[in-house]
Amino acid sequence: MSSNTYARLIGVGTGPGDPELLTLKAVRALGSAQVVAHFAKKGNASNARRIVDAHLRPDAIELPLLYPVTTEVERAHDDYRSAITGFFDQAAVDVAAHLEAGRTVAVLSEGDPLFYGSYMHLHVRLAQRFETEVIPGVTAMSGCWSLAGTPISQGDDILSVLPGTLGEAELTRRLSGTDAAVIMKVGRNLPRIRAALSAAGKLDRAVYVERGTMANGFATPLASRDDAPAPYFSIVLVPGWSGRT
Amino acid sequence: MSSNTYARLIGVGTGPGDPELLTLKAVRALGSAQVVAHFAKKGNASNARRIVDAHLRPDAIELPLLYPVTTEVERAHDDYRSAITGFFDQAAVDVAAHLEAGRTVAVLSEGDPLFYGSYMHLHVRLAQRFETEVIPGVTAMSGCWSLAGTPISQGDDILSVLPGTLGEAELTRRLSGTDAAVIMKVGRNLPRIRAALSAAGKLDRAVYVERGTMANGFATPLASRDDAPAPYFSIVLVPGWSGRT
Repeated sequence: MSSNTYARLIGVGTGPGDPELLTLKAVRALGSAQVVAHFAKKGNASNARRIVDAHLRPDAIELPLLYPVTTEVERAHDDYRSAITGFFDQAAVDVAAHLEAGRTVAVLSEGDPLFYGSYMHLHVRLAQRFETEVIPGVTAMSGCWSLAGTPISQGDDILSVLPGTLGEAELTRRLSGTDAAVIMKVGRNLPRIRAALSAAGKLDRAVYVERGTMANGFATPLASRDDAPAPYFSIVLVPGWSGRT
Repeated sequence: MSSNTYARLIGVGTGPGDPELLTLKAVRALGSAQVVAHFAKKGNASNARRIVDAHLRPDAIELPLLYPVTTEVERAHDDYRSAITGFFDQAAVDVAAHLEAGRTVAVLSEGDPLFYGSYMHLHVRLAQRFETEVIPGVTAMSGCWSLAGTPISQGDDILSVLPGTLGEAELTRRLSGTDAAVIMKVGRNLPRIRAALSAAGKLDRAVYVERGTMANGFATPLASRDDAPAPYFSIVLVPGWSGRT
């Protein structure tokens, strides 16, 4: 019965963690997908898979896509790049096989699929060949500033999304030249991030958020948090707007 | 029966326009709110109100909050600032009256409440006095890059959210120094935005998106669009990532 005509690739944003932050559109897409693909690290359950647990079809075929390497340190190496490119190539082949068989494939993406998401590696490999739909989701950073109750930006504010992996001088320069900032990939970079915020005169406004919208998530002023390593997906928020208009 | 104990202020992100991009949490909140407040310009229907139309309680009390002034030009003037501050003060008083009477008030916010949203003006005035919850939503920019099928940022990309109101030199400098960019408030600023993108060597990558996730929304390479004034809420996207890893 199924035919290529109806087979679609759907990038499904699952939001930042709370299953209630799924969109109606994501829930509907999950109900229509014969195949549900999700990225995960070997040995770790996929967080996106957990988020959608209540909404999969009982007969859904699951297609776990397991990253070949797991540690942050190896990322700059040629071996890592080669392995990860081969991994995404193979993942695209696996997804394409289902699409060619006439099955709609939902690829889960925590947060928003086209905003720092792994889904985009499949998108660039498959969107020219198959009917494709991207369902945006609530980003992790939106989940974090909502949990913290921190208005992040207003009016003509400039907002910069910065990786915590930047060097201290570069991070200081970027923080000095923006109204609002979101610093991602905090992890072991926290001491350097703190130093850069201090040099930019913005440490007192910075908010540290751990585990965004998970059940055990919390937010605290960064100034009151020590320099012990943070989870990799922690975020530091620097609000650009803090008063009344 | 109702008492202050259960009355809450809820900032509800409605997403970028498609009612299907409401979250399950937003739908649930709307079902629990005795009062639904929404910002609008005089004479214009609230877009956020339209988005949630199918999910309000039949007995919901509607509280439209009508901006006192409507044109972009007046924004820099002292008269505008004074009028808008008075307006937000009065809006907070009106919302507080319902909260004090024991009614839960949902304040609709297109996109995400704490990301360039009017809701934050009520949040800073009321969150210290009343139990408050912020429900994040899909941002307009996520809706736009999903509609366009344009991966915006990946890995260690720096993403800058810039107002189109910046001067040409400043916009050029910012665009040169970022991997990915989202330019908001396009409107009559389009010719200057185009010149800045050209000077930064990024015009060929820029994507123009009009009416985000509305039914008649569309995306097109900016290079193929003329300089006729754009709707105020159009967006220009500059992807930071365009290839395979």
